[in-house]
Amino acid sequence: MNSTSVYGLRMTGLLAVLSCTTVLHADEPLTMAAVIESSQPSDWRPLDQDRLLYMKLPGGQVVFELAPEFAPRHIDNLRKLVTQKYFDGLAIIRSQDNYVVQWGDPAAGEEGRRAYGTAASSLLPEFYRKSEGLEFSRLDSRDAYAEEVGFVAGFPAGRDSRGSWLAHCYGMLGVGRDNEPDSGSAAELYVVTGHAPRHLDRNVTLIGRTVSGIEHLSSLPRGTGTLGFYESEDEYTSIVSLRFGSDLDAGDRTEFEALRTDTPTFGKFVEARRARREEWFVDPAGHVELCNVPLPVRTVTQ
Amino acid sequence: MNSTSVYGLRMTGLLAVLSCTTVLHADEPLTMAAVIESSQPSDWRPLDQDRLLYMKLPGGQVVFELAPEFAPRHIDNLRKLVTQKYFDGLAIIRSQDNYVVQWGDPAAGEEGRRAYGTAASSLLPEFYRKSEGLEFSRLDSRDAYAEEVGFVAGFPAGRDSRGSWLAHCYGMLGVGRDNEPDSGSAAELYVVTGHAPRHLDRNVTLIGRTVSGIEHLSSLPRGTGTLGFYESEDEYTSIVSLRFGSDLDAGDRTEFEALRTDTPTFGKFVEARRARREEWFVDPAGHVELCNVPLPVRTVTQ
Repeated sequence: MNSTSVYGLRMTGLLAVLSCTTVLHADEPLTMAAVIESSQPSDWRPLDQDRLLYMKLPGGQVVFELAPEFAPRHIDNLRKLVTQKYFDGLAIIRSQDNYVVQWGDPAAGEEGRRAYGTAASSLLPEFYRKSEGLEFSRLDSRDAYAEEVGFVAGFPAGRDSRGSWLAHCYGMLGVGRDNEPDSGSAAELYVVTGHAPRHLDRNVTLIGRTVSGIEHLSSLPRGTGTLGFYESEDEYTSIVSLRFGSDLDAGDRTEFEALRTDTPTFGKFVEARRARREEWFVDPAGHVELCNVPLPVRTVTQ
Repeated sequence: MNSTSVYGLRMTGLLAVLSCTTVLHADEPLTMAAVIESSQPSDWRPLDQDRLLYMKLPGGQVVFELAPEFAPRHIDNLRKLVTQKYFDGLAIIRSQDNYVVQWGDPAAGEEGRRAYGTAASSLLPEFYRKSEGLEFSRLDSRDAYAEEVGFVAGFPAGRDSRGSWLAHCYGMLGVGRDNEPDSGSAAELYVVTGHAPRHLDRNVTLIGRTVSGIEHLSSLPRGTGTLGFYESEDEYTSIVSLRFGSDLDAGDRTEFEALRTDTPTFGKFVEARRARREEWFVDPAGHVELCNVPLPVRTVTQ
């Protein structure tokens, strides 16, 4: 087994380079890179292909990990849509700068829209859920939006006396809806491609996060219509296919591992992010914000 | 005088549309759009062409407002570089997803690099300054990184007992540096194009923010090298020119106005951002984070 890349790990400063030669001492304050280097196989969890969604675009592939802990109804409905190839040939219809990229049926709400088949066209929202039954790894951070923040099953989350919810950090995957809270169905999806719009937390159903290839979404030309919608069809990016990993041939899957968020190693990683020991930093913040904690994912080759 | 566009104002929800017909009542809670609509000319400040930097790229123009309140030395040096056309023909050499876009001389540090001429090649850092003499409009928000946050002269800022500093929000313009704190000169610049990397605050000199055209930077293809540097020259975007507005012909300038950040109107705008009265929101956050406060800019036609 061989780690070939670390995704989402934003290293060091603006002109610095990745150090791969740090020598570890037990009492030496660590950099994030050193924590990753010294991690053990048990610090990583393999991503379940049944929870991975592969979106093939003409320019490359984006892979999402889903969070059925938070949105089982929406993910079940999405599975029905995906199984009947609902998204194949549909399009990315919106890219709003510093906000979201969104895709679905350009004819949604009109004659000629694609039929939902066995999937429901509206669902009760899953904006938050009860906290019981969730292992919440708390992050020590003053958060503008939530009483408590941390990580659940590898995802950034908020928590208060009412329950727990996924947080709108960069790369999170959500279900577009109209004004009615139950108007989402997973037939229209969006990904956060800007500064975390945390004001959307608990107002819309998040179902997962991007683990690979977000650059194929985040670098799309911005739409010039209201809210970043594209104004003409030739601006759309067509969706070649959307599939669950478990439905792909083995050769078309990628094996991913994510750094677990419930381990002492992750605690050290967060601490290294907070205190930044890389030489470039002259005045480390000593603080970290939920959406500024990278959640490393690596690909695995046999 | 006629407002033709509002930049940076991220409206409403994911599928909602901009309402331009709200009827105002004194006691009616306002949306951000309604606050802008009901604003008076005195709520806006014209942007001084001497503080505007125009970057012409093959694909469009980006305009920055500079903040000499925080970085007079770097802005003076930048003016020397710009006056001798230092940047013309140089290139965007880095686009790191969810982080920064950076430009300068691809040959920096090597033989063949462009001469700095009358400009200094290194400067004492301007990571923060004393708070005396600054009007600080405080934002009521729990901030992960700073004891206090708010706005100074229209820019997002942090403050503590040591001083005040510009905050690394989306669109902020900074001066790249190497490991030495005084190794920056404004010959290499970067713009934040991802979730606010606030851990960079007080570690690097910020000099302004983007007021128009950031999509020409944020949607660039990501570099595939370490830290998002482009790996080959043909991936570079060349810089046609970089100029101060005051050095441009009148016909090449754009007249901008920014919503003042030290007025009761801005207070109402922030309150509207915090409480989100648009119909789409079912559970408004009641909170707002520094880098989630839009700073509206509009263009003015005579």
